[in-house]
Amino acid sequence: MAYPGYGGGYGGYSGQMPGMQMQMGQPMPGTVPNMPHGGYSGYSGYSGGYSASDPMWTYFTAIAGQDGEVDAEELQRCLTQSGISGTYSPFSLETCRIMISMLDRDFTGKMGFNEFKELWAVLNAWKQNFMMIDQDRSGTVELHELSQVIAAMGYRLSPQTLTAIVKRYSKNGRIFFDDYVACCVKLRALTDFFRRRDSMQQGFVNFVYDDFLQGTMAI
Amino acid sequence: MAYPGYGGGYGGYSGQMPGMQMQMGQPMPGTVPNMPHGGYSGYSGYSGGYSASDPMWTYFTAIAGQDGEVDAEELQRCLTQSGISGTYSPFSLETCRIMISMLDRDFTGKMGFNEFKELWAVLNAWKQNFMMIDQDRSGTVELHELSQVIAAMGYRLSPQTLTAIVKRYSKNGRIFFDDYVACCVKLRALTDFFRRRDSMQQGFVNFVYDDFLQGTMAI
Repeated sequence: MAYPGYGGGYGGYSGQMPGMQMQMGQPMPGTVPNMPHGGYSGYSGYSGGYSASDPMWTYFTAIAGQDGEVDAEELQRCLTQSGISGTYSPFSLETCRIMISMLDRDFTGKMGFNEFKELWAVLNAWKQNFMMIDQDRSGTVELHELSQVIAAMGYRLSPQTLTAIVKRYSKNGRIFFDDYVACCVKLRALTDFFRRRDSMQQGFVNFVYDDFLQGTMAI
Repeated sequence: MAYPGYGGGYGGYSGQMPGMQMQMGQPMPGTVPNMPHGGYSGYSGYSGGYSASDPMWTYFTAIAGQDGEVDAEELQRCLTQSGISGTYSPFSLETCRIMISMLDRDFTGKMGFNEFKELWAVLNAWKQNFMMIDQDRSGTVELHELSQVIAAMGYRLSPQTLTAIVKRYSKNGRIFFDDYVACCVKLRALTDFFRRRDSMQQGFVNFVYDDFLQGTMAI
């Protein structure tokens, strides 16, 4: 165990694997396997190649245009047209911006098709998790349910941090789908940033101010 | 100088003092005085007391209701009704949320009247800075102009970090007022969080993962 006291390490990836159903109430400390860091296991199958008959490719190229990449506004149109939100409200522009930041490894502010497919897989998994707790399809879940989801994804956080996070993404005491996804994106992106700097995987990082801002301002 | 290599330290406060005009192109390294950390000099006059004839008090109490505090949606209504955005578009809910986070010292997710007045003062200063560069009142400024504003506020950032930040808050190559304010709010809040942890004021902080997320997820 790389991060004593944090259960399965930073976690957050294993619970989000495409097609994998989250089991509420069960996967608490110790039950989440340590995934290889930085490898994004489970996503690799989505990162290579494409086919003209792939509906995602159709959505993507129709909007990306000649440069083969989408910015936040284009991503918003892309995701809306793909219908990935289902009966939930389409993603806000702000959420699309942080989605781009999460995967923008070359700091262009845009997203290529491979990253789009990677995003698609994660979004589908997050959506399934949300639908499991939003059983009446009201479009919202309760604060303590979001806490449970975050814990079940493998993040080991103090109650105080969990409370601060959940409150931040709520509206009138409920969590909407768009905000839930924004929360998942930020948790993953910030954890990823932290982990990249934590070369010894010890659970703490010595940040220089400039680097700290570079990693946190864009997310 | 508390932070060698960062000009006037983390900066960001002196350039934002209410009523103080930013002088573009001049106040680069060394010219920004070090403000006492944590004291928010320049804001103290706004933090105490109120009067029934104070128009801000009228806006605020009409919306805050019995608990005397506003959440993000109420803050949005409050700021819209106060007309602080002038001819610019009203603030988005997302920007209002991070405004609350910036000053939410007791983690309630709400803002009292003293914090509202503190916010008001900062917003007015930021707006004046924006209007100075948006001379044709188009509602947007260019990317390099935002970089200049950030530097002029006293933040000493590497070109790479500045570029990443500016790109994140742009739409179609321009910076809108709402996004500019969101950027200022986040810069100040994250710097404040970093500085509180940097007890020796050396420009680097050893973060534990949980604390890192607590400080960055809510902003």
